[in-house]
Amino acid sequence: MGRVTERRRILRIRDGVVGHRADTLVAEEPLEIRLNGRPLAITMRTPGDDFALATGFLVSEGVLAAADEVASVVYCAGATDEGVNTYNVVDVRLAPGVPVPDITLERNVYTTSSCGLCGKASLDAVRTATRLPITDHRSPTLTPELLSSLPDRLRGAQAVFDRTGGLHAAALFDADGELLDAREDVGRHNAVDKLVGRALRDGRLPLAGNILMVSGRASFELAQKAVMAGIPVLAAVSAPSSLAVDLAVETGLTLVGFLRGNAMNVYAGEDRIALAARQAH
Amino acid sequence: MGRVTERRRILRIRDGVVGHRADTLVAEEPLEIRLNGRPLAITMRTPGDDFALATGFLVSEGVLAAADEVASVVYCAGATDEGVNTYNVVDVRLAPGVPVPDITLERNVYTTSSCGLCGKASLDAVRTATRLPITDHRSPTLTPELLSSLPDRLRGAQAVFDRTGGLHAAALFDADGELLDAREDVGRHNAVDKLVGRALRDGRLPLAGNILMVSGRASFELAQKAVMAGIPVLAAVSAPSSLAVDLAVETGLTLVGFLRGNAMNVYAGEDRIALAARQAH
Repeated sequence: MGRVTERRRILRIRDGVVGHRADTLVAEEPLEIRLNGRPLAITMRTPGDDFALATGFLVSEGVLAAADEVASVVYCAGATDEGVNTYNVVDVRLAPGVPVPDITLERNVYTTSSCGLCGKASLDAVRTATRLPITDHRSPTLTPELLSSLPDRLRGAQAVFDRTGGLHAAALFDADGELLDAREDVGRHNAVDKLVGRALRDGRLPLAGNILMVSGRASFELAQKAVMAGIPVLAAVSAPSSLAVDLAVETGLTLVGFLRGNAMNVYAGEDRIALAARQAH
Repeated sequence: MGRVTERRRILRIRDGVVGHRADTLVAEEPLEIRLNGRPLAITMRTPGDDFALATGFLVSEGVLAAADEVASVVYCAGATDEGVNTYNVVDVRLAPGVPVPDITLERNVYTTSSCGLCGKASLDAVRTATRLPITDHRSPTLTPELLSSLPDRLRGAQAVFDRTGGLHAAALFDADGELLDAREDVGRHNAVDKLVGRALRDGRLPLAGNILMVSGRASFELAQKAVMAGIPVLAAVSAPSSLAVDLAVETGLTLVGFLRGNAMNVYAGEDRIALAARQAH
């Protein structure tokens, strides 16, 4: 593979000084995810960990919840007219007996709420589809100090970003703040799917004792992915959206935003934040 | 409408000081785009300018290129079982004689390249679908100084970001650096679609004399949207991906990245950058 980055010749302008030089760019290629041979979704992603991306995506959609539900994952050889394997088409075959969802046009579970499309319907769709409810498991309690240590640890795990500046990152931490896994991708949702797909493969779902930390913002889609993988805490460097907060409230997800230095905002699930002593002052 | 932001009660932690307060969040809601009554795509967006978002999306897909190709744009009343208009479903009806594309599962033009899914096929799909080729029109020549002035002007136009920190921004500038239009959205691609949809409505396509400036990174999808609207220059605050650069090279788009202070990288189309005098030194 080795296509995580690519080199291009660019024109660099800095304070009036102009010159050509080679530059490292983050690679972006389409990936088609097929389920039992049928095209399901296409995402623009950074190549690498594609099997994890495909299976993690299927966890987010409520199709998969355990490793033994997967019969096989393969790159489709002969995906082009010339029979070339582009390594951009992945087929996931379900194990016998695993229900094949009726997925047609829908790109995400929230779209299965056919009519009545609105935020509330999106929340209901995720709650209904969850196979690994957060509230089924004992959750960790976290100190603000521990949460404050995560952004630096995430940044430390970002290898490609330093060379290209072009990648989003996502990482899983345990309740002691130890980094378990980190992924980078042009799409933040892909980075999360890759983390979840690896956890599925390794039999670690639900991720009941873990924290998902993402660079940038917390959208509905990222909150959905955390909920579907049974992750009880989502922390983001920047702002969440209204619908991400609503989903967190409805599903019991702890949602932390603007996690920078010794500051943070807790938008939902504050019962998992250890504050008792401090609030007494 | 008035749903661009929403208020929520949050727990704020700063340097050990803990307290509840009200916070302003950027609104996120699903939007279903229908074409002649048929569901085409769903995007998570910040409500507002939805008709422009829907028609701009159709420009990006190669369906629309002029205002008179649109017969009507309406919110679907009765989209829910209770007959409530959620203002989250928009139907675009094409004028008589305008070809209705055969769009099934595909979310973007690059997906119409059925098999052989790869970066090259994605580039070919956009080039084939372009109805407003950049090279058909005389292009502006821009000085580095003018380009360097754009990020501050974009930031100045960001009204909601200041309150929520949760929005991506996109803006159109003319060749003199004058701000023509700016949009904010939870999704950067939505912000661009809204700009393009407004330009379509006002008879301003192709945007041959304009610069598209975006906060954050330049993905393939954003480059595609610029190309499909006939915009000759795309400038981004952060890094482009490899495929965005490849598309720019193939279609004649000028792609500028890392546009910060007096520095920038020109990844493609450097003929539109006025450098002659300076390179002589």
